[in-house]
Amino acid sequence: MNPNSELGPALQLLIERAELALERNLPPADHSPTELHRAMRYAVLGGGKRLRPMLVYAAAHMLGEDGPALDAAACAVELIHAYSLVHDDLPAMDDDALRRGRPTCHIVFGEAMAILAGDALQALAFELLADDRAGQAAPATHIAMLRALGRACGAEGMAGGQALDLAAVGRRLSLAELEHMHACKTGALIRASVRLGALLAGADDAALQALDGYAHAVGLAFQVRDDILDVEGESAVIGKTAGKDAASDKPTFPSIIGLDASRTRLAELIDTAREAIAPWGAPAGLLQELALYAAHRRY
Amino acid sequence: MNPNSELGPALQLLIERAELALERNLPPADHSPTELHRAMRYAVLGGGKRLRPMLVYAAAHMLGEDGPALDAAACAVELIHAYSLVHDDLPAMDDDALRRGRPTCHIVFGEAMAILAGDALQALAFELLADDRAGQAAPATHIAMLRALGRACGAEGMAGGQALDLAAVGRRLSLAELEHMHACKTGALIRASVRLGALLAGADDAALQALDGYAHAVGLAFQVRDDILDVEGESAVIGKTAGKDAASDKPTFPSIIGLDASRTRLAELIDTAREAIAPWGAPAGLLQELALYAAHRRY
Repeated sequence: MNPNSELGPALQLLIERAELALERNLPPADHSPTELHRAMRYAVLGGGKRLRPMLVYAAAHMLGEDGPALDAAACAVELIHAYSLVHDDLPAMDDDALRRGRPTCHIVFGEAMAILAGDALQALAFELLADDRAGQAAPATHIAMLRALGRACGAEGMAGGQALDLAAVGRRLSLAELEHMHACKTGALIRASVRLGALLAGADDAALQALDGYAHAVGLAFQVRDDILDVEGESAVIGKTAGKDAASDKPTFPSIIGLDASRTRLAELIDTAREAIAPWGAPAGLLQELALYAAHRRY
Repeated sequence: MNPNSELGPALQLLIERAELALERNLPPADHSPTELHRAMRYAVLGGGKRLRPMLVYAAAHMLGEDGPALDAAACAVELIHAYSLVHDDLPAMDDDALRRGRPTCHIVFGEAMAILAGDALQALAFELLADDRAGQAAPATHIAMLRALGRACGAEGMAGGQALDLAAVGRRLSLAELEHMHACKTGALIRASVRLGALLAGADDAALQALDGYAHAVGLAFQVRDDILDVEGESAVIGKTAGKDAASDKPTFPSIIGLDASRTRLAELIDTAREAIAPWGAPAGLLQELALYAAHRRY
C-alpha cells in the first residue's frame, strides 16, 4: 500500500517536497564511488513515511516560515533516520531482511557497503546543515541546528537509545525504562526535527518549549503505535516482519502494560501533543494532523 | 613500544594536550548508557599516534594561534579517526582482531556495540565542533570547520575511500588509482585536520592553499610508510598484524611499484610537504617535524 494514502493533501505535498530535496542532495548513482552512492540512494529513496521532514516543514509553517532553507534541514534528519535503519537492520544488530517492503540494504549491497553507506549518510546530514552559503539563515542558526542534531544522534540520543535497546533484550523493563529508551532511540531525532524547523523560523523560547513538548509526545506516540501494529498488523501492510518484536523477546508497550493500556497511553500522548500547540490555532494545523496520523496510522 | 618515543618534546606536549581534551570530551564510563560509553572510550583512549590532533595544533601554531578553541577541533578529528578504525576492523570489513596492540573494539564489546560506538563517535565529533558557546571563534568559522569535516568524512572523502578500498581487493590498481583511494580514505581527514587548525587561526587563502598542499603530501606519505612497514615491520612494533595487506590481497605501494620505488615516492612526498610550508620559517617547525615523522616512523 501507499504509505502516504492516510495523509491529507497538504502533508502529501510536504512529502513530495522532501522527496525532491533528497533526490537532489544525494550523490548521483553514476559517479564514483558508484556502489557506495547506489547503496546510499537505496537506503534513502523509494519508500519511507518521511515523518521527520514533514515535522521540519510543519513546525516552521506554524511559525510562518516556508523558505528553501528548510529543505536541507528536512534532508538532514531523514538521512540520519535512514542511516540508523541501515545499521539497525545489520545481522549484528536486529538482523532484519525486510524494510519498507524491500530487501534491506545489507541484503542488496553486502554488510560492508551497508555499514559504509550508513556512515556516509550521517556525514552528509551534517554537511548539508553546515552549508550556509545560500545565506538564508544566519551562521548562528546553522550552529544551533548542528548542535541539536549532533546531540540527537549521539550517545545521549539515538545511538544511546539503541544501546539501551540492545541491553533490554530478554530483560523485563518498567514502563518508565521503556519510555526512556524510546525517548532516546527515536524521540531525540523527532524532537530535533521539530527544533530544526523552529530554529529556521526564528522561534522564541516559548515556541521552542511548546514545540518540544509536542515533539516529545508525538515521538513516543509513534512508538506506541508501532508496537501495537507489531501485534495487530500484517507484514504486507506494515512493510516489515510482523510479530518480530515478540519473537525476538524485545520489550514493547503491549508486552509490559497490555494492549488496552497501550491504546490508552497512545490517546493521552496525542492529547498532550495537540494541546501543546493549540494556542497557535490554524497555522498549527499540519502539526495537528501529524499527531493524529501518529496515533491512527495503519502502516 | 611507546608510539610517542619518536617525537620531540614539543609534539609530545601536543599529544598530552590532545589526550587531556579527549578524556574530558568523551562521555563518562559510569553514566548510562554505560556499555556504549565504555566502548567509545576504549576505541579512543589508550593508544594511537594522535597525528590528526597534532596537525590541528601544529597548523594553527604556524599561524600564531594556540588558544583553547583548538581542543574541540583536535578532538573532533581524532574521534572521526577512531570511529573509522572501529568500523574498519569489523568482521564484515577488514576483520581485524588486533589494533594498537590491543583486542579491537568488537572483540571486547561485541559487533553491535562496536557499530553503535562508531556511530556515536561520529556524532560527537560534529557536536563538539558545533559548540561555539565559549565564543572563541565566530559562528562562521565553526560553520566552515563543520563543512570541511562533513565533506572529509562522507562519500567523497573517508567513507568513499573505504568503498574504493573494498572494491580494490583482488584487483590490480594503477599507482594513480591507489593514490586516489588513499587521498580519500585517509587523506581527506588529514587535510581536514590541517584546515581546521588553519581556520581557527584565521588563515588567508594563500596559507590555506599552502597548508593543503602540505597536508595532501603528508597524508599520502603516511600511507606509503604504512605499506612499507607492513612489509618490513614486526607485529609487536607496529601494534597490528604485519603482512596483513599482502595476505588479504590488498593493493599497496610496494605491491604495485616495488619497495625501492615506494621509498623514492615517500621521499618526494616529504620534500613536497616541507617545501609547501618553508616560507613560514621557524613557526612551521612543528609541521616540518611531523612531515619527517610521517616518513621515518617505525610504528
